[in-house]
Amino acid sequence: MSIPSRITPAEPIHPLPGPLQPATDSPPPPDELAGVRLARVALTWLAEPGTWSVYRLVREFGPVGALDRVLAGDVPDRRLLAAVAARRAAGDPHEVAAAAIAHTGRLDARIVVPEDDEWPPQVRDLELLSLAAAERRIDQDTAPPLAIWVRGQWPLAETLDRAVAVVGARAATSYGGYVATELGYGLANRRWTVVSGGAHGVDAAAHRGALNAGGLTVAVLACGVDRPYPAGNSSLFDRIVETGLLISEWMPGAEPLRHRFLIRNRLIAAATAGTVLVEAAARSGATQTLRRALAINRPAMVVPGPVTSAMSVGAHELLREHPRTRLVTGVPHVLEEVGRIGADLAPLARAPRQPRDLLDDESALVLEALPRRGALGPDELAARAGLDIRLTLRKLALLEDLDLIVRRDGGYAIAAPSPRPTTTAN
Amino acid sequence: MSIPSRITPAEPIHPLPGPLQPATDSPPPPDELAGVRLARVALTWLAEPGTWSVYRLVREFGPVGALDRVLAGDVPDRRLLAAVAARRAAGDPHEVAAAAIAHTGRLDARIVVPEDDEWPPQVRDLELLSLAAAERRIDQDTAPPLAIWVRGQWPLAETLDRAVAVVGARAATSYGGYVATELGYGLANRRWTVVSGGAHGVDAAAHRGALNAGGLTVAVLACGVDRPYPAGNSSLFDRIVETGLLISEWMPGAEPLRHRFLIRNRLIAAATAGTVLVEAAARSGATQTLRRALAINRPAMVVPGPVTSAMSVGAHELLREHPRTRLVTGVPHVLEEVGRIGADLAPLARAPRQPRDLLDDESALVLEALPRRGALGPDELAARAGLDIRLTLRKLALLEDLDLIVRRDGGYAIAAPSPRPTTTAN
Repeated sequence: MSIPSRITPAEPIHPLPGPLQPATDSPPPPDELAGVRLARVALTWLAEPGTWSVYRLVREFGPVGALDRVLAGDVPDRRLLAAVAARRAAGDPHEVAAAAIAHTGRLDARIVVPEDDEWPPQVRDLELLSLAAAERRIDQDTAPPLAIWVRGQWPLAETLDRAVAVVGARAATSYGGYVATELGYGLANRRWTVVSGGAHGVDAAAHRGALNAGGLTVAVLACGVDRPYPAGNSSLFDRIVETGLLISEWMPGAEPLRHRFLIRNRLIAAATAGTVLVEAAARSGATQTLRRALAINRPAMVVPGPVTSAMSVGAHELLREHPRTRLVTGVPHVLEEVGRIGADLAPLARAPRQPRDLLDDESALVLEALPRRGALGPDELAARAGLDIRLTLRKLALLEDLDLIVRRDGGYAIAAPSPRPTTTAN
Repeated sequence: MSIPSRITPAEPIHPLPGPLQPATDSPPPPDELAGVRLARVALTWLAEPGTWSVYRLVREFGPVGALDRVLAGDVPDRRLLAAVAARRAAGDPHEVAAAAIAHTGRLDARIVVPEDDEWPPQVRDLELLSLAAAERRIDQDTAPPLAIWVRGQWPLAETLDRAVAVVGARAATSYGGYVATELGYGLANRRWTVVSGGAHGVDAAAHRGALNAGGLTVAVLACGVDRPYPAGNSSLFDRIVETGLLISEWMPGAEPLRHRFLIRNRLIAAATAGTVLVEAAARSGATQTLRRALAINRPAMVVPGPVTSAMSVGAHELLREHPRTRLVTGVPHVLEEVGRIGADLAPLARAPRQPRDLLDDESALVLEALPRRGALGPDELAARAGLDIRLTLRKLALLEDLDLIVRRDGGYAIAAPSPRPTTTAN
């Protein structure tokens, strides 16, 4: 088994440069940024996040111009106009937005917009869903977010720079809870941020695993960050706010309406380098997050389970129907997948040395095949390990990323012991 | 879950035309056939089954000519010549073969050779392994069998005409035993012969499932059919001899030497329309049977399990490393795979009508989408079932093969109730 079998508390790991600092690189003029933020909040209130017509207007005319056009009725989307008219009967959009911004400040939260340095650039990949939506292969409400409410001390973009989503069934079995906890723990322990939805079951287990490792975790909510849902997880949310982030595309006070979970799921897929599905009943919401990840070409990983378990039916369906979903059994497999996104693996070199017993069987075989002194080429290592050459090369890349081996003399050698402490200060 | 949840005894199902009858279609002259049989038995004694140099001589010169050349030392294979010399020191090949043939008769067994009508033609596909062996991707001892010893009343070729292999770990968990039993039961219940290796664990569970369904099962042994191994399964072997077949490429009295299991595995893969792996530790013998199936382009199916189970590590490895392995969770998925071999599915039309609750979820959705009267096209059915069109077409093909629906008026309709009894006489 490639999942570590025990959960032991670890030293806190804080891979980020430190608590939030004001941006120093050419910030937009404060007045202009305030106007942009107000317009984005007003648009969020007028139309449900993920609405394509609003997103396209913002791209073309900027947030302020888009808001003007929406309020002037200068929009080709009739459904949007009806929704806006209903909203305006309830209040003035500028006033509502200003009140929401003030309220957000009182909550010790903040509103992050694409014009901020803190904005995670990868969520723009959701634009790819436009094509999928046009082909009717995916729901319509899938445009990138206009603004993200954030509670917690870490900068959003850096927190999500090395992040993996772990999602699954609310009604998880003890097996699913165990696997999600171990994944959350192991990923956090390797300095990956663990992203999930804050729900009962798999989501909560993944968050808790990351917290137990002293790592970063982000709960992406389908309601206001002031009232994280479900209330039964309130102590978990309290822990997340202290050491990680609660984020949402909805304004404070927004209710967790059913359709919002589906809109929210695309952000979980887009904010991370890959999504792991742990347990899912047939055609459940969790499988939908994985479909979003597939649609924007992110690694979509699935943990199998007993075929006798209804809670693994959705997982097995995905593995059968989507050739690009990848079966994973533990953290090393997940790192193999998210490592494919070029530079994403680079920071791993700064990770603390991991005990070798966390390696999967094949990586351990390759490591054992290395001589105590000197280097060997991949062909010879493959022969000694009894593995085929392609698998050996993959495992060598993983071992190198984990700092366990180095390239030398045209081959690979065991890495010299490092004088670095277990927890690197940075 | 797509596996039936209860095991209930069923009426015996005997899909074959009846007990063994002498071949009537242009049988070879008895004298010539006797000489051929004697030569093949002598060659089996002189060299381990699966030896390519012997197989090639037989193809070129016939069994009698091949034996002459081997005995004359007129062979380019030095290892073979050394083995033959060692054997000849122990006895005269013709005498040993004659004694073995007589002994076989006393055991109420028989020797089936390619010159018999009873010979299963599909095992000749093992010739494809020659290429894989030449490329060093597979062991050397993989030539097709020279002769097969058979105990049991059914004709070999017809018994194996609609057969699926179910293999896996000897040290199966209760999960693996349960899944193998259900697969054996469900396949036998649909008139597929269940083939396995007679070992403890998954093999025995699959055989027992088939026997419990009153179906046919074949144990392919790595030792003589007179001393099936392991002895702990002797009552199982007794049941198999009564209602199915024990078969082996080795002469009576041959011991179950370790390397023989690997040679035997290729026959399990070649004799069947597809192989299902239920549980396997890393790099175990059971995974090797699946690799043989892949090498001769037969469906190679794998049942996933908990990632926390060491007994599923080999299964998950195969699913990860071999793109052509297919994840299956129960009998309907297995039938989808073996049904791809063209005509193999045709006899399904003669199968007794199965209760609809044995269908997988998606097939059930498609069936429910059909109107009570009249026909609908696949596009409309896909929309009604909420499934994509390709999946819908696959499920329609399955439902048609199961006789639950018929093609009509350019679409599909529910099949009219059939006057056929549950168990068809034939």
